[in-house]
Amino acid sequence: MAVDHTRFLEDLHKLREFGASGVGKGVFRPAYSKADIAARQWLADRMADAGLTPHFDPVGNLFGLAPGRSLLMGSHSDSQPEGGWLDGALGVIAALEIARSSDQPISVVSFQDEEGRFGVTTGSAVWSGGLPLDKADVLTDGSGVSFGEARSSMADLSQGFVDPARFSGFVEMHIEQGPSLDAANEQIGVVTDIVGIRDMSVTFEGQQNHAGTTPMHLRRDAFQALSLFNTRLNERFRNVVTPQTVWTIGRVDLHPNASSIVPGRARFSMQWRDGDPDRLSRMEEIIRTTAQEIASEQGMVLTYGPLLGLEPVTMDQSLRAALEHGAEQVAPGRWRRMPSGALHDATNVSRLMPVAMLFVPSINGVSHDFAEDTTESDLVAGLRVLDLAVQSLDGQAR
Amino acid sequence: MAVDHTRFLEDLHKLREFGASGVGKGVFRPAYSKADIAARQWLADRMADAGLTPHFDPVGNLFGLAPGRSLLMGSHSDSQPEGGWLDGALGVIAALEIARSSDQPISVVSFQDEEGRFGVTTGSAVWSGGLPLDKADVLTDGSGVSFGEARSSMADLSQGFVDPARFSGFVEMHIEQGPSLDAANEQIGVVTDIVGIRDMSVTFEGQQNHAGTTPMHLRRDAFQALSLFNTRLNERFRNVVTPQTVWTIGRVDLHPNASSIVPGRARFSMQWRDGDPDRLSRMEEIIRTTAQEIASEQGMVLTYGPLLGLEPVTMDQSLRAALEHGAEQVAPGRWRRMPSGALHDATNVSRLMPVAMLFVPSINGVSHDFAEDTTESDLVAGLRVLDLAVQSLDGQAR
Repeated sequence: MAVDHTRFLEDLHKLREFGASGVGKGVFRPAYSKADIAARQWLADRMADAGLTPHFDPVGNLFGLAPGRSLLMGSHSDSQPEGGWLDGALGVIAALEIARSSDQPISVVSFQDEEGRFGVTTGSAVWSGGLPLDKADVLTDGSGVSFGEARSSMADLSQGFVDPARFSGFVEMHIEQGPSLDAANEQIGVVTDIVGIRDMSVTFEGQQNHAGTTPMHLRRDAFQALSLFNTRLNERFRNVVTPQTVWTIGRVDLHPNASSIVPGRARFSMQWRDGDPDRLSRMEEIIRTTAQEIASEQGMVLTYGPLLGLEPVTMDQSLRAALEHGAEQVAPGRWRRMPSGALHDATNVSRLMPVAMLFVPSINGVSHDFAEDTTESDLVAGLRVLDLAVQSLDGQAR
Repeated sequence: MAVDHTRFLEDLHKLREFGASGVGKGVFRPAYSKADIAARQWLADRMADAGLTPHFDPVGNLFGLAPGRSLLMGSHSDSQPEGGWLDGALGVIAALEIARSSDQPISVVSFQDEEGRFGVTTGSAVWSGGLPLDKADVLTDGSGVSFGEARSSMADLSQGFVDPARFSGFVEMHIEQGPSLDAANEQIGVVTDIVGIRDMSVTFEGQQNHAGTTPMHLRRDAFQALSLFNTRLNERFRNVVTPQTVWTIGRVDLHPNASSIVPGRARFSMQWRDGDPDRLSRMEEIIRTTAQEIASEQGMVLTYGPLLGLEPVTMDQSLRAALEHGAEQVAPGRWRRMPSGALHDATNVSRLMPVAMLFVPSINGVSHDFAEDTTESDLVAGLRVLDLAVQSLDGQAR
């Protein structure tokens, strides 16, 4: 049976009705919200219609299980507080359409809390064993609700955890969430790897002082130390980074943060991402060396928060080759191999089985915003690549 | 009658008992607090003992009036929430001691809310006509109490506003609140002028983006724009400033201020101080030119908040000469002429009459802190300079 583009787009729009919000095609469907649970129940019915066995696990991940050994496809159906209609939902509905139309056994999954109301890709992190359930249960959202409390609202639906051994691999289709494909007028990105992340908080502590009576040469101004650190770091990274490497100072908290007071303390986030673990380490060394230099020169006490490290994940060669084969047929000259700069459920699932990912463009690179969108022709192109890839995998997928 | 150092120091310690708090010689005596009002009543009694007529005006400024035309001396007796025992109190108690011992008519004042629980040097601003009473009354403190409500707690003490024409001039002794005298092991600073202040908020608005999926060359990162602005500004100011000029970025608010998001907006305070109005204007021009350049180069929308401008105030030549004469006798080779980088009640009073100021050292430059202190020998040196200055003014003061 061929994939049905119309049914696929209709189901995407139907899923959007759960939590439709904001402007354009916006969605408000955070993990465990009423809209999220209703959407999952609707999805479970569609899975059953497709001949799959719906199965909720104890954290609310929803599987649609094919009999016997199968390829797992999907993503997540929870959204950001100001989310778009495609982030996560696209991968789930595309998987559903492939499961309906494919001759091969395809299971479907919608992971829970990928968007991190509680942790980071929480549902797939628990399922993959990366996050113990008791540690997840004490995570809290912004209003103090714990993950344990939240998941209890789905307890009546819960069966046990699904045995990962029944799946031969995992394929996730997702919007790019960045501008590269859209800027190049390309339709498909076949992911080579999901970049690793390093993230830590850095604090320069100088001397808080009166901004009128403290001469410039006697100041130990923590903001000036931060600015100098940033400038010198940018210079030094030039010799180390690739065009894919990114680094960000996204959070800055000055103390006491008043216009008439020389800042005594600057605490800021330092995050960097790259596909190569060696490069991540070299960057860390440059960060620490530079911060230490600045601290010595500027009379600062330097402290670091804990280093968060997520290792890069390389996509499975054979699954990726199948996606590339499909991309070349659907969008010759209009697809590329590219790293994923964002985290995805596939990062966690890679602990359990081979994984691969496919991107379609995000218009203007917008995501995590009501304005997120992708043209219908690109959505359908993505679906067709998945279909061809699954066909080419043939018996391999078992 | 000679000034009595012991009585002067004893009275300083007695005043500290009202609101004594925190460590060391800390004080908690905000404007209109129970401790502040009790301290003012105690001060009124001491003024009466000294033969002065105590007079509370409608905003709680306390005058001790000498008969006929007189020189006014004093400062303020309210404190910061975590204040020291000398900031303000020193100038009031020194004035009281001079009034007691001088042969000339000396009036004493303790202004209300110099520390800005409600506005900026609120009591002297109202008295001098710089701030209309109806505008002052609607100012609120951090907990929502209005100036109007707060001053009503002293309404039973209130007489009318004092006619400034009865005063020939105003002399304020104060701690330096900066490190210059202490670092140079000097005892006395004779103030040449109170610097002018310019203060405005500046906003760079770029594009908020995902910190993983947005390549460096496609970012419009508002923090990077701020850092670049700061670096370039520091370079350009070098050719314009003097060692007395200061400038500060004390407040920085990034939006959304999250480690995984490229900052879309940076709003920050830009404050600069100098004794020369022309230099203040040249600095403003450099700030605006540089910010515009950065905005163009980095793809930012640039906006400014309103420009707060306080003009520099030059000390009266003759009052200042009297203080210099005293300083040379008390601390030969250990005094200097210097600008005041901080605002004082004298700034407001200069609208009404000639003013002059005298500084004694702040140990390690610390102020607005429980740890604020000055050695007894420096406190006494300041008192002696005032005494000699008043003697040298002789009949001039009438």
